[in-house]
Amino acid sequence: SNDVKEYENYFGMTLLDRRSDKRTDSKWLSKKQSHPTTVYILFSNLSPLVTLGGGIDSSQQPEVKLCRLYHKDVEQCLNKTEECTLIFLGVELLQNLAAAYNGRVLQEDEEDGLVAWFALSIDSASAEKFKQKHEDCYFLHPPMPALLQLPEKEAGVVAQARSVLAWHDRYQFCPTCGSTTKTEEGGYKKTCLKEDCPSLQGVHNTSYPRVDPVVIMQVIHPDGNHCLLGRQKRFPPGMFTCLAGFVEPGETIEDAVRREVEEESGVKVGHVQYVSCQPWPMPSSLMIGCLAVAVSTEIKVDKNEIEDARWFTREQVVEVLIKGNQRSFFVPPSRAIAHQLIKHWIGMNANL
Amino acid sequence: SNDVKEYENYFGMTLLDRRSDKRTDSKWLSKKQSHPTTVYILFSNLSPLVTLGGGIDSSQQPEVKLCRLYHKDVEQCLNKTEECTLIFLGVELLQNLAAAYNGRVLQEDEEDGLVAWFALSIDSASAEKFKQKHEDCYFLHPPMPALLQLPEKEAGVVAQARSVLAWHDRYQFCPTCGSTTKTEEGGYKKTCLKEDCPSLQGVHNTSYPRVDPVVIMQVIHPDGNHCLLGRQKRFPPGMFTCLAGFVEPGETIEDAVRREVEEESGVKVGHVQYVSCQPWPMPSSLMIGCLAVAVSTEIKVDKNEIEDARWFTREQVVEVLIKGNQRSFFVPPSRAIAHQLIKHWIGMNANL
Ligand SMILES: Nc1ncnc2c1ncn2[C@@H]1O[C@H](COP(=O)(O)O)[C@@H](O)[C@H]1O
Ligand SMILES: Nc1ncnc2c1ncn2[C@@H]1O[C@H](COP(=O)(O)O)[C@@H](O)[C@H]1O
Repeated sequence: SNDVKEYENYFGMTLLDRRSDKRTDSKWLSKKQSHPTTVYILFSNLSPLVTLGGGIDSSQQPEVKLCRLYHKDVEQCLNKTEECTLIFLGVELLQNLAAAYNGRVLQEDEEDGLVAWFALSIDSASAEKFKQKHEDCYFLHPPMPALLQLPEKEAGVVAQARSVLAWHDRYQFCPTCGSTTKTEEGGYKKTCLKEDCPSLQGVHNTSYPRVDPVVIMQVIHPDGNHCLLGRQKRFPPGMFTCLAGFVEPGETIEDAVRREVEEESGVKVGHVQYVSCQPWPMPSSLMIGCLAVAVSTEIKVDKNEIEDARWFTREQVVEVLIKGNQRSFFVPPSRAIAHQLIKHWIGMNANL
Repeated sequence: SNDVKEYENYFGMTLLDRRSDKRTDSKWLSKKQSHPTTVYILFSNLSPLVTLGGGIDSSQQPEVKLCRLYHKDVEQCLNKTEECTLIFLGVELLQNLAAAYNGRVLQEDEEDGLVAWFALSIDSASAEKFKQKHEDCYFLHPPMPALLQLPEKEAGVVAQARSVLAWHDRYQFCPTCGSTTKTEEGGYKKTCLKEDCPSLQGVHNTSYPRVDPVVIMQVIHPDGNHCLLGRQKRFPPGMFTCLAGFVEPGETIEDAVRREVEEESGVKVGHVQYVSCQPWPMPSSLMIGCLAVAVSTEIKVDKNEIEDARWFTREQVVEVLIKGNQRSFFVPPSRAIAHQLIKHWIGMNANL
């Protein structure tokens, strides 16, 4: 349905073509780094530099926009390579670029017209200086739920950048031998600096960014007219959402759904159906959204994992989601996959 | 369809309930370690110890079975904790265990009757000694395609064990600070030993096993009657299979499919539909199988990634897959998800 398509886009839609082929083209990368059309987005402590968007209506939430910087703005930071991390994000999607060149093959050194984007992470001291120079800009912190205020297309760019930067932050040393590493391929590879490290023989995931698959599921009562929502202690009071958990090694998506639901709530699940997914850059998860049909109904909450889990009627959920009556409980905002899974279920036939 | 269900099971089906709640119950774990019914499966260099199954018909492929060992068999290795890694895999699925106790609540120290399984990885010297003592056993090496000869239910146990052991093998040091780590929670957690390491503040994925999501896709020609298969240089001559690639940070499954197909073959994909998934313990991937509908047909192979990609007609594929005529080309064995995706497409209506 259209509802489901919509959330696929938040954190999943992007302005950019990643052009991973360019990651190994260091000549091209370095030319683009100093090119005047190249766009830089800045991060400090994994928070992007933003500014308030124009045309704010006081009755609405303020719109927050990424600050698009240029080489001249970041030149100083770029020279201090030790304190900053640079990631090549891709080039702007230009449907008509080929047409612009009339199908002509580019000469060796001719400018290709591609607008490259980089993410640049700077240290706290540089960030402080930067804010003093650009008074209308600030670093979006804490990231959640603030990241959900970005325009959809920028959210995808931020998801990509933040995930890769978080990986650099936490994976500075070679996990195989403990040595220092160097960054390559536009920020998408880390290579161990110890010559005889086993990580250098063959291809190993230790060198590449990590993506953690997570299952998130709308569990439907055998009667088709109730769904199971739970809450963790750290949630704001009154918020309930879909159950979720990390996929374990050697496990299918479907089995991960069954295991997590049973572990957290005691409810047994039969049929599982994939609905849609969403990247979640906290720090680098892939949320895999499913519908799960319960085959038992008794709830036994595992207090170590969640605080509460309950069956809600379709009417209760419609009241909250469609009519906006959030007196009894509420669910995550529409840009979170949980919201869209719940909405998707409401739109389905009452009887499965 | 039933075909698709079938492959979900290879590496995905298991004999065991993981019982992750027991991972933090060190008293229970240590009691089970020395319990006489506890099953140990042995690994050396990430290869499981197996034996030839009984009732082999010389006309068939020999069946290979996991060696199920007991505490007395591995006691010596277990004492050398520095050279071996122990992973708690779960307990045997016993439908009727509750019934056996007649609903009675167990006493504090009463035996719970659960049959625990552990994976034990030993060093090469111990492995050598072990083979000398158990002449009918050997370590399955190289893992592929040998692992595909295991009985289905054992394959799932091996997938789980091999993925977690591979993580221990490659992630011995804290990637955040380079220090040594200690293993906890039945082998599912590694904690940095440096007191002020940032990885100890809050929850971080550096402490948990890694699972790499990979998309694998059956790309269908806009005419519905051809599919796109490719081959890598390292494949046996004549083998073609579905295109595949790692999901990147900040990317949806659907976009990863579109990006990988275009990168490798130049073909543009529109609609993408999830079909099924399979864990792939080489070392710890989750293969996410999709159907992808092409919206362009011209093939431009990226020679860095693959050697060849071609459109095959439905008839060509039926000839190979159903009639077993592998003169012109062949596809991976039925226990690989690629085989099942291709088969699934053959079973579909000719026109999408
Ligand atoms: N997690 C990962 N593990 C291994 N290779 C990766 C990973 N992520 C990206 N890659 C890239 O994928 C290539 C291997 O892909 P493949 O030949 O399909 O196994 C490597 O050369 C890397 O460039
Ligand atoms: N890759 C991972 N990253 C973080 N936590 C993980 C991971 N894998 C398993 N876990 C477990 O999941 C718990 C956090 O789950 P959650 O509260 O849903 O974020 C942690 O306490 C760990 O026990």
